[in-house]
Amino acid sequence: MVKVFFQDIGVPTKNRAELVDITQDVEGTVRGSEIRNGLCIIHSVHSTTAIIVNENEAGLAKDILKKVQQEYEKGADWLHDKVDDNADAHLASSFIGSTRMFPVREGRSERGTWQNIFLLESDGPRPRRIVVEVLGMRSHEHRASEQARANFSRILTLHS
Amino acid sequence: MVKVFFQDIGVPTKNRAELVDITQDVEGTVRGSEIRNGLCIIHSVHSTTAIIVNENEAGLAKDILKKVQQEYEKGADWLHDKVDDNADAHLASSFIGSTRMFPVREGRSERGTWQNIFLLESDGPRPRRIVVEVLGMRSHEHRASEQARANFSRILTLHS
Amino acid sequence: MVKVFFQDIGVPTKNRAELVDITQDVEGTVRGSEIRNGLCIIHSVHSTTAIIVNENEAGLAKDILKKVQQEYEKGADWLHDKVDDNADAHLASSFIGSTRMFPVREGRSERGTWQNIFLLESDGPRPRRIVVEVLGMRSHEHRASEQARANFSRILTLHS
Repeated sequence: MVKVFFQDIGVPTKNRAELVDITQDVEGTVRGSEIRNGLCIIHSVHSTTAIIVNENEAGLAKDILKKVQQEYEKGADWLHDKVDDNADAHLASSFIGSTRMFPVREGRSERGTWQNIFLLESDGPRPRRIVVEVLGMRSHEHRASEQARANFSRILTLHS
Repeated sequence: MVKVFFQDIGVPTKNRAELVDITQDVEGTVRGSEIRNGLCIIHSVHSTTAIIVNENEAGLAKDILKKVQQEYEKGADWLHDKVDDNADAHLASSFIGSTRMFPVREGRSERGTWQNIFLLESDGPRPRRIVVEVLGMRSHEHRASEQARANFSRILTLHS
Repeated sequence: MVKVFFQDIGVPTKNRAELVDITQDVEGTVRGSEIRNGLCIIHSVHSTTAIIVNENEAGLAKDILKKVQQEYEKGADWLHDKVDDNADAHLASSFIGSTRMFPVREGRSERGTWQNIFLLESDGPRPRRIVVEVLGMRSHEHRASEQARANFSRILTLHS
């Protein structure tokens, strides 16, 4: 049986620019979905934030924020600053993107060891909402595709 | 019942660099699909365009185009310019990406208020094709996952 | 019937920075999945690589690598370099992204003529693993959605 599962994550950010690790919330949603094979989408519904996937190391977090601020410089004669003083944040969101995704396989997200999931805040502090969606098959349908995978692996072996 | 729905959007661009708002076309496809819960993929099949999600404000659109042109500078000694004089456009597409996606929930795309969808043209004018795909469950299957979501929300409340 | 299909691609990279074309591996997985309509996710499970989609032209590949190295400069006083001397590679991965995706339609990925798929290595040489996932409907379910598409196209024609 196919299932679609949603969970909203509320993140009250505390600074203008900030990285907030939401990995545990995403993982909890994947487990709670009881979906065994499918995919997980992490989507921020804002135009001045982004989603970033990388290692959670304190120095690197500062490097990422520094790079964002160098790259999308605040107050650099942007036209949008006349409307709302946050063109830099809109640019960061536009180019980096508000969405990341992972395969879900055997009930676990296919994240590498150093692939944590972060909300990049560029115009805080604000209350932010991230939609986590898990879409896929529950356990019992999986046997068929497991069989198909076994068949396919055998074919690959024969050809390689 | 699971359904997969496709709609091609044709965009005849008018300038070398341009942002074209395709939000209404994407939303029309989501509605036309009659899919209630799933996801929507917006994919440009070209290597000199990208898809960007952000606010539709005239000044910001100019800021985005200016940033693209600063970042992926035309004629900056790129080797590909010897083959075809558009390396800057290939670079913009490579780094920004040709694809964006949204969750579809209760029949609506999970777009924030200021998340419009744009084709970024970097090597126009040309006729461009964008594939919009909606994949998910039609209405009547949703009741089961709604029940599951209610259960899960209750569990979350108990634990938090 | 809905199916989820996975294939791991192992890529032993040979240089610190490198683009490896994995298009044929991805296409082989799409064909092997026997999925007719759905989507294909290409996900690198590492935090110092990215996935890029663009033309396979030798000069352009060098332009892309040059741009990555200019943009995410090695040794530019990054704090993470005190922990592990590869902050530049983490930054490239964070901003470019470790994942790309394509619609799968009528058994084929919706790639444009010049949209090849590359692993971008930024901290090699290392053995790398890329997860390719295909999720969607096998052939016989497609007739229903084909009918729905035909209906929708007719509706569009009436309204436009």
